[in-house]
Amino acid sequence: MVLTSEHVKYFKDLLGGNSAVIDGLSRDATEDLEAFNSDWMRKYKGKTKLALKPESTEEVSKVLKYCNDKMLAVVPQGGNSGLVGGSVPVYDEIVINLSRMNKIRSFDEVSGILVVDAGVILEVADNFLAEKNHIFPLDLGAKGSCQIGGNIATNAGGLRLLRYGSLHGNVLGIEAVLPDGTIMDDLSKLRKNNTGYDIKQLFIGGEGTIGIVTGVSVLCPQRSKAVNVAFFGLESYENVQMAYREAKGQLSEILSAFELMDGHSQNMLHAVSQKKRPLEGQHPFYCLVETSGSNIDHDGEKLEAFLEHVMGEEIVSDGVLAQDESQKLSLWSWREGITECLGHWGGVYKYDLSIPLPELYSLVEDTRERLTSAGLIGESDDYPVVGVVGYGHMGDSNLHLNIATRRFDKEVERKLEPFVYEWIAKRNGSISAEHGLGLAKKAFIGYSRSHDMIRLMRQIKNLYDPVSQFKCQFASGAANDKSAEWNHESL
Amino acid sequence: MVLTSEHVKYFKDLLGGNSAVIDGLSRDATEDLEAFNSDWMRKYKGKTKLALKPESTEEVSKVLKYCNDKMLAVVPQGGNSGLVGGSVPVYDEIVINLSRMNKIRSFDEVSGILVVDAGVILEVADNFLAEKNHIFPLDLGAKGSCQIGGNIATNAGGLRLLRYGSLHGNVLGIEAVLPDGTIMDDLSKLRKNNTGYDIKQLFIGGEGTIGIVTGVSVLCPQRSKAVNVAFFGLESYENVQMAYREAKGQLSEILSAFELMDGHSQNMLHAVSQKKRPLEGQHPFYCLVETSGSNIDHDGEKLEAFLEHVMGEEIVSDGVLAQDESQKLSLWSWREGITECLGHWGGVYKYDLSIPLPELYSLVEDTRERLTSAGLIGESDDYPVVGVVGYGHMGDSNLHLNIATRRFDKEVERKLEPFVYEWIAKRNGSISAEHGLGLAKKAFIGYSRSHDMIRLMRQIKNLYDPVSQFKCQFASGAANDKSAEWNHESL
Repeated sequence: MVLTSEHVKYFKDLLGGNSAVIDGLSRDATEDLEAFNSDWMRKYKGKTKLALKPESTEEVSKVLKYCNDKMLAVVPQGGNSGLVGGSVPVYDEIVINLSRMNKIRSFDEVSGILVVDAGVILEVADNFLAEKNHIFPLDLGAKGSCQIGGNIATNAGGLRLLRYGSLHGNVLGIEAVLPDGTIMDDLSKLRKNNTGYDIKQLFIGGEGTIGIVTGVSVLCPQRSKAVNVAFFGLESYENVQMAYREAKGQLSEILSAFELMDGHSQNMLHAVSQKKRPLEGQHPFYCLVETSGSNIDHDGEKLEAFLEHVMGEEIVSDGVLAQDESQKLSLWSWREGITECLGHWGGVYKYDLSIPLPELYSLVEDTRERLTSAGLIGESDDYPVVGVVGYGHMGDSNLHLNIATRRFDKEVERKLEPFVYEWIAKRNGSISAEHGLGLAKKAFIGYSRSHDMIRLMRQIKNLYDPVSQFKCQFASGAANDKSAEWNHESL
Repeated sequence: MVLTSEHVKYFKDLLGGNSAVIDGLSRDATEDLEAFNSDWMRKYKGKTKLALKPESTEEVSKVLKYCNDKMLAVVPQGGNSGLVGGSVPVYDEIVINLSRMNKIRSFDEVSGILVVDAGVILEVADNFLAEKNHIFPLDLGAKGSCQIGGNIATNAGGLRLLRYGSLHGNVLGIEAVLPDGTIMDDLSKLRKNNTGYDIKQLFIGGEGTIGIVTGVSVLCPQRSKAVNVAFFGLESYENVQMAYREAKGQLSEILSAFELMDGHSQNMLHAVSQKKRPLEGQHPFYCLVETSGSNIDHDGEKLEAFLEHVMGEEIVSDGVLAQDESQKLSLWSWREGITECLGHWGGVYKYDLSIPLPELYSLVEDTRERLTSAGLIGESDDYPVVGVVGYGHMGDSNLHLNIATRRFDKEVERKLEPFVYEWIAKRNGSISAEHGLGLAKKAFIGYSRSHDMIRLMRQIKNLYDPVSQFKCQFASGAANDKSAEWNHESL
């Protein structure tokens, strides 16, 4: 259905004041709607004429029911920090933005259970928890803008997964609104509840295709008294694997991050930032190791023993240990700053992949080799590609393969796809480890999922959103932070 | 449909040798079928005439497809160690027993990912992992007989959940056979895979109502070098809560269990076992605290500081620290031995509940008071009830309320139900924290789940097992270790 002024009037009556309804139908609101229509990478761009900002679960319910009845297509949106084009309209879907649902509902200091509105920004929650001596069990670069509902909807992974596990384990309850307006109240504050199917799990990583997450209950660990950060240079990927094994064995329960960055990524970060490098010399590989524990002395001893071992055995060539908070942040910036710096020359082709550990870095080498022999990489403006870099969460076998370019280029694209996906499929990896499918990966799900699994997913979609079968391709859906067009099209 | 010799012939041709088909139709196999027809508590008893023991996923698939086509009711069975009557036939359903699917498929020492057949016994897997310096992320009293497939199907909680989290986080992949025979191959060995709905989650805790789990991929942590066990006597439940808070704060990342046992449970255990008690005096409450870490000295120091603090502050009245392996086992026996000893006098009414921590023990007191004032508890044979005890997993807010009786008694039952369930519902607790619904709790799901949630569950059941709609009440289903009659009846 096409949006009419009658529809807009309904929403204005329902949601009240102008701030809740950004109406591009009756006036020129192109500028106001710009932020809702495009993602932060400026890669995906929609043409919505209407953005709604409901303030309560009941308002979300009424909006969705109305849209479902009137067959109006919608796309849910959280912090709009996704990397796969899932949180912006593709055509003219109505944007349902959760940012006004931003209340912390409750926190229990003994159990560590936090209940929040979906629109609470991750960093806001983590700062709140810091005061209570706890942390959110998830951390990622976009924490200053991403919303918890979007994190849940996309099953965000991030930097602390190695230590605290996935959201499937940490999320205790979800409140969500289904496409027909039903409020699914599964906002349990219990660590254990074996009374029937754990339906909320479908909404974790469901990318909002079967409902909009409006509230979340999550188990938060205690904040560690001691946090240490070390940064290493290594001569080969073999050594990186050895260092990881040693870290797992020796740092064990205090290991909270083991991140990999290749030399290419650090060179490019240095070229853009001009910051002083953490280590004197240069190395083909770098690792960042973080420990979090309850006893400063014990952690220090463990880390020292680990450092002595990996240096003594020449597993790592050089290393530095942060001496204070600002040094910790500085070392982390050499990992967290990569994503943003790569856009410096123009655009970035981004792949977020799960690969069995022994072969994890081979894909970066194979891709670089492939683009080099095609004559696509070079230092001058004649070449579309600036560089091919690999980094990621070693502890989760999660590689970020990024190709920094001066411009998006069809020839580069033809060299990359389906090459990368076929490479992954051959090794039973995942074509999207933590970013989700969104618009970017929806056509490629078959590289990571069998025909039968896709059929089972389609069944689930049809179960919760049967009306979309009769609507246009991108109708309804309902998602947080990443909509789920993949479901309509690819499944 | 009624089972005929033609059906039995099909299964014999399919599964081969006699050991795979225990046929009570053409011969008197009552004794052989006894083990399949009754649970270990001897509380539930079925009347099956046929038990099948398939050896492969393909065989399970063919069995289920045939049963589905012929409308033959089935009940899946693992180690048959469940506590809610979910793994035995209710009427004459065919038992599909997984015990012959007992192969360890693979283990990766770097990632810690184990892949097993569903019929592998938990202790067998844990012993295998011990040799590889890892542990299974789940431990429970029945480990010597329960099967991993059943653990997954019932979302078993157990003793290590506090440290390692729930199976929803640790299970990476599941292979299952759906009622129509479809093999769902979602046996991922990836820690991260955000490509669509995480459908396998429905099978974790689904009690086999939508498919039989045949294979499992699970993330296993490294085995701790240092394990310590302490046992405390405390004067009040207030003190127990304080001790738990201190343990969380001070033992932090090495805390691996915090178990609660009331004085009543320890007195009864002592009366039955006649073993020497761990502590000299008697106390109204006891706790068992376990730590697991990578450094013996560090863990010892942390534990010592914790002991000094809780003894100095008089939070605990007395305590003992195990000095060797046999003392550790001995202390654990005062927790793990409770379940079995309570059956000594006759039967046990068992409740497995999630309750917000501050009120957790009040239910035991309220129940004891209620049965006492009704004149039902006493030392002589005239009284049906021997005692009311409370114990459980403090760290998970999970209470086991047990009423030991000399005989099952209608008056006791009327005093207990719906009283216990109403008490729980009032506090938004769970009527089944870790045991599942099975046959025992199926009628009471409404005390822990809303009408809407039950409706959504019924949808899921219908999606995977539509044929059962047209069969008798207990038809089809398909579950591991606990079947899911609750779904047919209560939902």
